[in-house]
Amino acid sequence: MQRFNLGARLQYRTFEPATFVFNIAVAENDHQKVVSEDIRLLPELDFEQHVYEPGDSRYLRVNVPTAGSFEIDYRATVESTPYYSTAPVIAEVPHAVMPLDVLTYLYPSRYCESDRLMRLAELQFGYLLPGYSRVQGICNWIYDNVVYLSGSTSSGTSAFNTVTERAGVCRDFAHLGIAFCRALGVPARFVTGYVVGLNPPDFHAAFEVYLEDRWYLFDATRLVSLDQFIRVGTGHDAADVSFATIFGPVEMTWMELFINGEADSDTDMATTAISTIAI
Amino acid sequence: MQRFNLGARLQYRTFEPATFVFNIAVAENDHQKVVSEDIRLLPELDFEQHVYEPGDSRYLRVNVPTAGSFEIDYRATVESTPYYSTAPVIAEVPHAVMPLDVLTYLYPSRYCESDRLMRLAELQFGYLLPGYSRVQGICNWIYDNVVYLSGSTSSGTSAFNTVTERAGVCRDFAHLGIAFCRALGVPARFVTGYVVGLNPPDFHAAFEVYLEDRWYLFDATRLVSLDQFIRVGTGHDAADVSFATIFGPVEMTWMELFINGEADSDTDMATTAISTIAI
Amino acid sequence: MQRFNLGARLQYRTFEPATFVFNIAVAENDHQKVVSEDIRLLPELDFEQHVYEPGDSRYLRVNVPTAGSFEIDYRATVESTPYYSTAPVIAEVPHAVMPLDVLTYLYPSRYCESDRLMRLAELQFGYLLPGYSRVQGICNWIYDNVVYLSGSTSSGTSAFNTVTERAGVCRDFAHLGIAFCRALGVPARFVTGYVVGLNPPDFHAAFEVYLEDRWYLFDATRLVSLDQFIRVGTGHDAADVSFATIFGPVEMTWMELFINGEADSDTDMATTAISTIAI
Amino acid sequence: MQRFNLGARLQYRTFEPATFVFNIAVAENDHQKVVSEDIRLLPELDFEQHVYEPGDSRYLRVNVPTAGSFEIDYRATVESTPYYSTAPVIAEVPHAVMPLDVLTYLYPSRYCESDRLMRLAELQFGYLLPGYSRVQGICNWIYDNVVYLSGSTSSGTSAFNTVTERAGVCRDFAHLGIAFCRALGVPARFVTGYVVGLNPPDFHAAFEVYLEDRWYLFDATRLVSLDQFIRVGTGHDAADVSFATIFGPVEMTWMELFINGEADSDTDMATTAISTIAI
Repeated sequence: MQRFNLGARLQYRTFEPATFVFNIAVAENDHQKVVSEDIRLLPELDFEQHVYEPGDSRYLRVNVPTAGSFEIDYRATVESTPYYSTAPVIAEVPHAVMPLDVLTYLYPSRYCESDRLMRLAELQFGYLLPGYSRVQGICNWIYDNVVYLSGSTSSGTSAFNTVTERAGVCRDFAHLGIAFCRALGVPARFVTGYVVGLNPPDFHAAFEVYLEDRWYLFDATRLVSLDQFIRVGTGHDAADVSFATIFGPVEMTWMELFINGEADSDTDMATTAISTIAI
Repeated sequence: MQRFNLGARLQYRTFEPATFVFNIAVAENDHQKVVSEDIRLLPELDFEQHVYEPGDSRYLRVNVPTAGSFEIDYRATVESTPYYSTAPVIAEVPHAVMPLDVLTYLYPSRYCESDRLMRLAELQFGYLLPGYSRVQGICNWIYDNVVYLSGSTSSGTSAFNTVTERAGVCRDFAHLGIAFCRALGVPARFVTGYVVGLNPPDFHAAFEVYLEDRWYLFDATRLVSLDQFIRVGTGHDAADVSFATIFGPVEMTWMELFINGEADSDTDMATTAISTIAI
Repeated sequence: MQRFNLGARLQYRTFEPATFVFNIAVAENDHQKVVSEDIRLLPELDFEQHVYEPGDSRYLRVNVPTAGSFEIDYRATVESTPYYSTAPVIAEVPHAVMPLDVLTYLYPSRYCESDRLMRLAELQFGYLLPGYSRVQGICNWIYDNVVYLSGSTSSGTSAFNTVTERAGVCRDFAHLGIAFCRALGVPARFVTGYVVGLNPPDFHAAFEVYLEDRWYLFDATRLVSLDQFIRVGTGHDAADVSFATIFGPVEMTWMELFINGEADSDTDMATTAISTIAI
Repeated sequence: MQRFNLGARLQYRTFEPATFVFNIAVAENDHQKVVSEDIRLLPELDFEQHVYEPGDSRYLRVNVPTAGSFEIDYRATVESTPYYSTAPVIAEVPHAVMPLDVLTYLYPSRYCESDRLMRLAELQFGYLLPGYSRVQGICNWIYDNVVYLSGSTSSGTSAFNTVTERAGVCRDFAHLGIAFCRALGVPARFVTGYVVGLNPPDFHAAFEVYLEDRWYLFDATRLVSLDQFIRVGTGHDAADVSFATIFGPVEMTWMELFINGEADSDTDMATTAISTIAI
């Protein structure tokens, strides 16, 4: 178990009444416990919360009634107990017995057009032993073949673009990983969260793959250690879990994140090379 | 209330063990009651059912253990009681109070890239009075500007293609309608079903839009009468509700549908021009 | 006849030996006479010139042998005598008698995918009387339906994008006009040049359409008066006539254009509304 | 020198007056001599010929004045004397001295979006020794990574599609080869022709690359022997050299090609492995 203090402060200028749906609060599940949490709005406004089931993403809706400035300040203390597998092999689940509620994570989505990558995925990764190590192979290929380049992509960039244009940011790396997995018949989905080690601190994106009996976390960027990753949003791709969906003319004026991990003395997992993890 | 006898018979040749997930069984809800149903597999095999929540789509999984021929024969008798609104005006729901569980139907999906149609939708439909009549305006525009042409598109065709290439089938008409609605901030989703009036009988696709307090059905093809439409699948777009998802090398050898409606004497709704309907 | 003083100054930092091919010198033809011209390179280097036939674009090649700074300063005095048609009607040329050397301007190109706009063009403009006025109709549609927005597009943006995304700059407006014309079977090509009236001064792009017996100039942006346009490059689309094609790692450090027109007393054409022009 | 008898017979039904521009006649140049040629039209009609300079493609225009059936029957005897290089190394031409009239073959075109393949080409082939052998490396990669599959692509398919979708026909193989070369700064263009060895006989597409002092022929399909290839069209990509461009509603009713090579006793080149050739 490891404890993290984290938070995000977002400021906006509104020009008329506007509705915000934030997806910045930490999800709660067996591996993440929110010890304490504070959500402050400036001006003081009510907000409403909706839990979006896959991964228990939390949508917070705020209606800002007037033009002016608006701020949301989120802080939380979280205890994280990732599941570490020590199994030598983690297999794919045959479609014959795969839980039917993960089926939609096999289907193509806006930013992960797996249907267009079938032959490529088969050719590139079809010969690899199915399972955890094949997904690692996919991550290695992405890391080796796509340049991490801030500003190289836009909100319209999809896996079909990235696989050829070969540049992107964490979101693009995750989309490509997801698209390859789905093209191979392996369920995969998009995860956002707070993570230790980014400079400057920012929301990070990674992806999860359903193997054996749970979702395993992967990150082709190699920018961070995944045992320091605290889940916020879970969805088919970035379309589902934007950190802020905004209705109305609005300008972002400030954005700031922080996360500090306090290593727990009971474990030194965080300091070892971690490759098999689920959160 | 109207009663329908309907069914589908699908035959395949399998070349090795294969897994099928069918989405051909009628969904049950307040407006559709399955009076009787018969699902026969040839050879006799077990199947497993999973209800996919939006619209209560029913996924049927069958594992065919050997090479050979395989058939599924689905028959049902269904009582349909569509909701007909008589309201003179059906409004859009402000984002400030929209149920948060319809939010994901605002997001772009594989075949409905609403994020790329924002300016076009605003320019073309932004000046129309929001609500039911605006969605009708979108349907009219699609009907007037897109040619219904069998074989003109493929499983990879999306709304972004159709809006320029101007040809497609029911699935493409629905995708474009959905994409326009989402681009205008109105939740929309994809519906498949059995419908009276297609020649030859085939699965039909239409779309639903969330207005006021429920999902309303629309169909830009003008091929059928929507009160004769029996819902099977509901999803973000066609990716979610393919009538058959198949794992393994398989060849379809036969496909046949039928649907017969028996008009109930209590109502002559079916014979009047119906434009406002939810199923 | 009108006389223009114009020029461009471009500065670069080179990091190793580099080759530049500039397309910034005024083309000479029956309607444009270069009275005097001065091309200065700093450091003093040789350059080589190649005339690229369609429109007599002039490619200037300079080999910069070392890392350092490099500048090209182009100045010219040009006499322009546009052809003004006073014909009440300017017809399209039947394909049966169209000069065969304009045929390639009917074919789709990188940024003008006319093959994908066939149905749309037919639907939108097919009912208009063929000829000059139909091309004006195309320009009007573009002006009315596409937002001129600096920075909204990139060097990868094509007519297929713009027709849906509905924002762009002069180059995108020209590409869309060309694509529509070709989709209707009318030869069209891309023109770049100096033009009075842009603020800040910049290279402008417009398009030409082959009608009756010559190429007529069109500009859907309505930003400038076309009788103040001095032709530099002519090609199938922007790919052919980039103002600078650069081989080697180079950084642009400065770019500056100017153009001043001296109205000739013999004509007041420039002050009247001009809509029918060929240069 | 080798002699070929070849021909094509194309039949159409016209529904109203129509204009055809054929690109089926053999090009004449230093390596190909048309010994005799016969072009028959049924009904007997005049035709007009235009030589399109790159590669001296010959456009034949026929105006069919009425509805009915129409046939063109082209036959020729051709002497082919390919240039075989025996040089151990064939280098790329530095941009500093490259003939400026090949420059446009560096630019992206409709079906060869080299601008979008820059990073991929650099990553995949940038480490190879520039020159003939690198283009061979590109051909090998295409052969190894793209499936030759009749009917898998359409007239809208481009290199950007093929590089990910990994299936295509000769035209797609050529487009991808061209796009990779251009992305690496090497001029490349599209060639169509008659070729011995296809079953059934059909027009073939390959590509040429400008190296050292001439255009060298390449074919990533490995379907035929390039010394049995007789050039018809040469262009930026398939858009320039369609075997028939048709204006008017027309239906093709028959198409038939043949080519027979008579090996000349003076040379046994044709029977050896040929890899370095220009026609």
